[in-house]
Amino acid sequence: MGTLFVVGIGPGAPAYLTDAAETTLARAEVLCGYTLYVELVRARFPEKVIYTTGMTGEIERCRYALELARSGRTVALVCSGDAGVYGMAAPVLELQPDYPGVTVEIVPGVTAALSGAALLGAPLGHDFCVISLSDRLTDWSVIERRLSAAAAGDFAICLYNPASRHRKDYLRRACEILLRAKGPETVCGMVRNIGREGECVRILTLAELCETEADMFTTVFIGSSQTLQIGERMVTPRGYRT
Amino acid sequence: MGTLFVVGIGPGAPAYLTDAAETTLARAEVLCGYTLYVELVRARFPEKVIYTTGMTGEIERCRYALELARSGRTVALVCSGDAGVYGMAAPVLELQPDYPGVTVEIVPGVTAALSGAALLGAPLGHDFCVISLSDRLTDWSVIERRLSAAAAGDFAICLYNPASRHRKDYLRRACEILLRAKGPETVCGMVRNIGREGECVRILTLAELCETEADMFTTVFIGSSQTLQIGERMVTPRGYRT
Repeated sequence: MGTLFVVGIGPGAPAYLTDAAETTLARAEVLCGYTLYVELVRARFPEKVIYTTGMTGEIERCRYALELARSGRTVALVCSGDAGVYGMAAPVLELQPDYPGVTVEIVPGVTAALSGAALLGAPLGHDFCVISLSDRLTDWSVIERRLSAAAAGDFAICLYNPASRHRKDYLRRACEILLRAKGPETVCGMVRNIGREGECVRILTLAELCETEADMFTTVFIGSSQTLQIGERMVTPRGYRT
Repeated sequence: MGTLFVVGIGPGAPAYLTDAAETTLARAEVLCGYTLYVELVRARFPEKVIYTTGMTGEIERCRYALELARSGRTVALVCSGDAGVYGMAAPVLELQPDYPGVTVEIVPGVTAALSGAALLGAPLGHDFCVISLSDRLTDWSVIERRLSAAAAGDFAICLYNPASRHRKDYLRRACEILLRAKGPETVCGMVRNIGREGECVRILTLAELCETEADMFTTVFIGSSQTLQIGERMVTPRGYRT
């Protein structure tokens, strides 16, 4: 029986790969993953067997990777960011009981909440929530409930998947929910194409964010009541007593 | 003028360092940080000038690092995990206006929520909150409010600093708050000494967690209503519709 490694590669640039991720990808015989993510590392491992699928082929991809591992191959399933945060670790572990004897190891990586935060400054310097606005696998009512709770708890918030072609107004809808409990001047940030060509950063207010379009390559940060803009940086202080 | 890099080194083992963190530490003339964290990387860079302080010397440490950078040195301020998540990025950026001309760059790292999750399985596979139970810099009332909100939103939750010598019962107090909205059978996990000697993992129920002592080297995970124990893994599924 082989081993399936689920590997977080960070936001894309080789500089964000951990040593463990690099070593695991080098050791694997087959690299699987969503086409775009595999392309990010493919050039470094030209000799590998590659299996890619479109974005919505997660389960097919996980099963294929588990089957290869069952046949004795060492397989790496490549995830953007971290392996666990909206990554392939959960579906692989859900399917694993169908493949007795296959070993699964999870290799963590720098998720967009962390890599995006570093570009903005320190927006997640105190307690925070991570929420995906994608309702492809989650009812919108669950997402709404989480946005309301995050605002009620005065968390800093990081939003993944703030929009897509089919969900152009979701960021606005999310901001409208947050504005019920957060002030319109709340400091917010957007980061696009983290660690890739076209990387850019913007700081704006929650009221402005509500009027702004995002896309699927954007990660959005919404401050707590304590978050500050200091120069061109977004900062949530650790100590609220100072 | 020099540059101050605030660098997240991951949980400790060299395997979790990103290429960017490694390169930055190699390039820096001076490494600053909390004694324990600097020790984790010191062996790899024996030629460096080292400045360490105790855990509560954050501001002193940040000022020292900024002063060194002002004098033209290239300085790395070493943080465990990520540079921004309860790390030194926020206090450095708050102090930066006192040191005009000094450049500050944040290098992200794998925070304990991610490295601990990978050891447990995929507890953060869907929306999650990160909350610190340390009330050294935060009023306990703020922490309570966040715990209640996180439970109301049915988030998976990762707790940092669940206990210390002076806060032996804080984890119990947190569990009691969570038990008002979450079931006693909620799947939870604890990870101790991530990426270091003595690394260990445990899965237990929220009711059991309430009766369990933690220490400052432990990271705690509390599932959402959807979190499962699958074999020896803790898994929060991505899709709630399946």
